[in-house]
Amino acid sequence: MGNRVTILGCGSAKPTRRNIPSSQIVELNDKQFMVDAGEGTQIAMQRLGVHTSRLDHIFISHLHGDHCFGLLGLLSTWGMTGRTRSVCLHAHADLERLMRPLLDYFCQDMPYEVRFESVNPHHHEVIYEDRTLTVTSLPLRHKVPCCGFRFDEKPRQPHIIAEAIERYHIPLASIPDIKSGSDFTTAEGKVIPNAELTTPASAPRSYAYCSDTAYSERLIEWLQGVDTLYHEATYLAADIEKAKRNMHSTSVDAATIAKRAEAGRLIIGHFSSGITDHSLLLQEAKEVFENTVLAEEGREYEL
Amino acid sequence: MGNRVTILGCGSAKPTRRNIPSSQIVELNDKQFMVDAGEGTQIAMQRLGVHTSRLDHIFISHLHGDHCFGLLGLLSTWGMTGRTRSVCLHAHADLERLMRPLLDYFCQDMPYEVRFESVNPHHHEVIYEDRTLTVTSLPLRHKVPCCGFRFDEKPRQPHIIAEAIERYHIPLASIPDIKSGSDFTTAEGKVIPNAELTTPASAPRSYAYCSDTAYSERLIEWLQGVDTLYHEATYLAADIEKAKRNMHSTSVDAATIAKRAEAGRLIIGHFSSGITDHSLLLQEAKEVFENTVLAEEGREYEL
Repeated sequence: MGNRVTILGCGSAKPTRRNIPSSQIVELNDKQFMVDAGEGTQIAMQRLGVHTSRLDHIFISHLHGDHCFGLLGLLSTWGMTGRTRSVCLHAHADLERLMRPLLDYFCQDMPYEVRFESVNPHHHEVIYEDRTLTVTSLPLRHKVPCCGFRFDEKPRQPHIIAEAIERYHIPLASIPDIKSGSDFTTAEGKVIPNAELTTPASAPRSYAYCSDTAYSERLIEWLQGVDTLYHEATYLAADIEKAKRNMHSTSVDAATIAKRAEAGRLIIGHFSSGITDHSLLLQEAKEVFENTVLAEEGREYEL
Repeated sequence: MGNRVTILGCGSAKPTRRNIPSSQIVELNDKQFMVDAGEGTQIAMQRLGVHTSRLDHIFISHLHGDHCFGLLGLLSTWGMTGRTRSVCLHAHADLERLMRPLLDYFCQDMPYEVRFESVNPHHHEVIYEDRTLTVTSLPLRHKVPCCGFRFDEKPRQPHIIAEAIERYHIPLASIPDIKSGSDFTTAEGKVIPNAELTTPASAPRSYAYCSDTAYSERLIEWLQGVDTLYHEATYLAADIEKAKRNMHSTSVDAATIAKRAEAGRLIIGHFSSGITDHSLLLQEAKEVFENTVLAEEGREYEL
């Protein structure tokens, strides 16, 4: 399994001929995560042949229908197809209150457990952590409580140079210390500096998802240096007033955040159903932040 | 607007690359009706460019997710796009209990009203009537309470022969009586028999939808003479035991019902996700009832 994000849906509230509502699969370090699950998520997964055998956590940014109406169908289908691993929904606390009666009615006798982890949409904090990565909530500015998510690989240990193990007769027991930065002292008492024994670890990958939100200054700090940023760009720059009114971003808003946060790359999505030519959004964003690409449903973006 | 049924979805519980769950639009006499609304219904409508300006009634056969998980998204989108006409959902009483909290949460301040009409799934009765047609419930045999629906145009009045009006100087005031079957007496006292004044009305159209159901003998009476019958054919004939267990029909079950009910035409749908070659179902059905066609998403069938 690679490290990538697969866009399942990148439209906004109203589906169009081209776009369904928001959903994507983030794959990092052999783990899969879903971010948002608008209507049609499971259908898009089927059509793309997305396998979700390692998908145990779903992060829902906010409780607008275009970000969560696909959950029930997905969970229901998993029940019918023999899933046994529990799944955890990380979302605003209201989701559990709303979904439990539906799960009880439509998904009786499911062979797996659905757990809910409440996300406080006002806190910027680590909401998921495992051995190799963390997910941090990013409070956004929208009409209802809303959170983005930043995925960060944990720093890795440096690689031991295989030749050095041989040359200095380094026992296996010493390797963890060397990976942690220690020098090595040979049987003859000679100290070999760590720098001669290791090569630096590859840089930890990072990815962030910010939808739906008005332009938000505080994101700049939280997104600092992120490798890939998915940021909503619902409207063209000319529609800035509409964007403010609806608490969404323009192409230029998204690109400004990416530029000021020194992101590596920007993916723009959550396109208004009123815009038929997405290349206009791309062109506007690229004028501010060159390394911008359009979200496209079915496309995988390497992380 | 024509008289037709448009298939939006004709898959079964689990979506496939080809099929989404059940939904269709029935158009008769300038009225539109939706029957079932599985996940993806509004997406299919967008992609096909289906306009629903006259769609005020939705009939839901039963409360399995693949027949109703698309409702909330559809109702929500209508709210965002300025619908003002109320819509009536005809369904098992539980639907209102389940949906009200969701409508209250996700669809606040909707500019139109959502009404619920409870359908008793055990009664065979007229559940909708207007000036030109009736809809009758057809209790089906499924794992949960489930109803099919039969749409019948009301008998029309015969046509008055224009030449007769002229020849016998028939006043406008007498036309309703003649259309109702009366003879006409001229000013000279000559009685003109009705048969010389009218031509017979065109036969009323009828359409029935039966999904989901095990083979059900009593349907034969209720479907007698229907012009077009949509009947589920989830499984191949060889899978009869599986069909019985899951309370679904095989291709041969569907065709047998069509034949014994003397239907004009049979459309089979609700295909199991396990069957990739639907032509096998068609072939089996045609051996019993020649005038069978496969349901295809996006296709319109004239009524």
